[in-house]
Amino acid sequence: MHQLVTIDMEKDLLEANRRLANENHRLLKARGIRSVDLMGSIGSGKTLLIERISMLLKDRGHRPGVITGDVAGDDDHKRVSALGIPAVNVNTGKECHIDAHLAEHAIEDMDLGSIDVLLIENVGNLVCPADFPLGTDKRAVVISVTEGDDMIRKHPVIFREADVIVINKSDLAGVMEVDLDVLKRDANTVRPNSRVIVTDAKHGVGIEELMEALGLI
Amino acid sequence: MHQLVTIDMEKDLLEANRRLANENHRLLKARGIRSVDLMGSIGSGKTLLIERISMLLKDRGHRPGVITGDVAGDDDHKRVSALGIPAVNVNTGKECHIDAHLAEHAIEDMDLGSIDVLLIENVGNLVCPADFPLGTDKRAVVISVTEGDDMIRKHPVIFREADVIVINKSDLAGVMEVDLDVLKRDANTVRPNSRVIVTDAKHGVGIEELMEALGLI
Repeated sequence: MHQLVTIDMEKDLLEANRRLANENHRLLKARGIRSVDLMGSIGSGKTLLIERISMLLKDRGHRPGVITGDVAGDDDHKRVSALGIPAVNVNTGKECHIDAHLAEHAIEDMDLGSIDVLLIENVGNLVCPADFPLGTDKRAVVISVTEGDDMIRKHPVIFREADVIVINKSDLAGVMEVDLDVLKRDANTVRPNSRVIVTDAKHGVGIEELMEALGLI
Repeated sequence: MHQLVTIDMEKDLLEANRRLANENHRLLKARGIRSVDLMGSIGSGKTLLIERISMLLKDRGHRPGVITGDVAGDDDHKRVSALGIPAVNVNTGKECHIDAHLAEHAIEDMDLGSIDVLLIENVGNLVCPADFPLGTDKRAVVISVTEGDDMIRKHPVIFREADVIVINKSDLAGVMEVDLDVLKRDANTVRPNSRVIVTDAKHGVGIEELMEALGLI
């Protein structure tokens, strides 16, 4: 009985999330704003990728805005704001992902008239965000070579949700003794025909290719 | 109303977990088995630490056993088994942590007569495992310097649960430009008087100190 109630509630929850995600998407489209949900593991370099993408977008005359999601703190929000990019911080407390409802409030707090691209940095986690689309045009998952070459096959669900799979910190593949081909092969097994982009955010490598894959340029 | 039901169910769930954790602890103690729950982020090096600890325990005449937890796959289980160490694999599916019930089943599947130390590798995640003690003597959280120096203050809840905080991959602190003192300071802020152990599992540095902090030697 307990089990049944749990399953029903989970179904309700996911259905409610999907409804809210659709509303978020309609709102962003109506304002002509393209959007990306950047999921990925802790310390995989999501914030630096967002900083790089935002600066390149600005160079091209676009107006990026960022929602930074974390369990606690405002480290990422401070980093993005310091670049002069409109940013809204979301703290999820004990939740391990942003959901469409939290995203909706963050979008309300964003000055939508001042942006044409919205980048959402989800909480660092390769499990929880998978089930909770936020209403963005694209979803991407970022991993880092520093996590080893078994990350994709250990977390198939979230990679099946990803329009784009990003393998970051490629400059460290040698020192970490990680085989990029294993990660690429696993990506293609879990999500055939996915776009797999190798980046080195620290040195600005692969960023434009990633922006193109995300439909931002 | 929905919210209230959710909160009540969560309370029930955590209370049920605590009860099962207590039972696990009683069972392990009755068999004279010391136990550790190794939590930590994805790719922080939990498996290699467990391999190192297990081999040193064997050298000293102890009989380690390992429960490897992952969302999917048996990569870690294969690694540990290859060392001739009794190991049981737990796949959590869509769950982002092992709970006491899953741990109980894994303990049932372990030949308890052949071990005197049980090392449990939790799912790579800095949020979910915090609320679900498994009934071990100690809980440790592992992070890697490759994740940057903001990991602890971004995830205070799980570090408050940790008897021991492990900062791994210390050999990469220089190349990653990460300040170990920042991590140590944050660890002490979040959990004053915590044991903070710096390790480099790849090169076998800090392992005995960690074993001592975990009460294993």
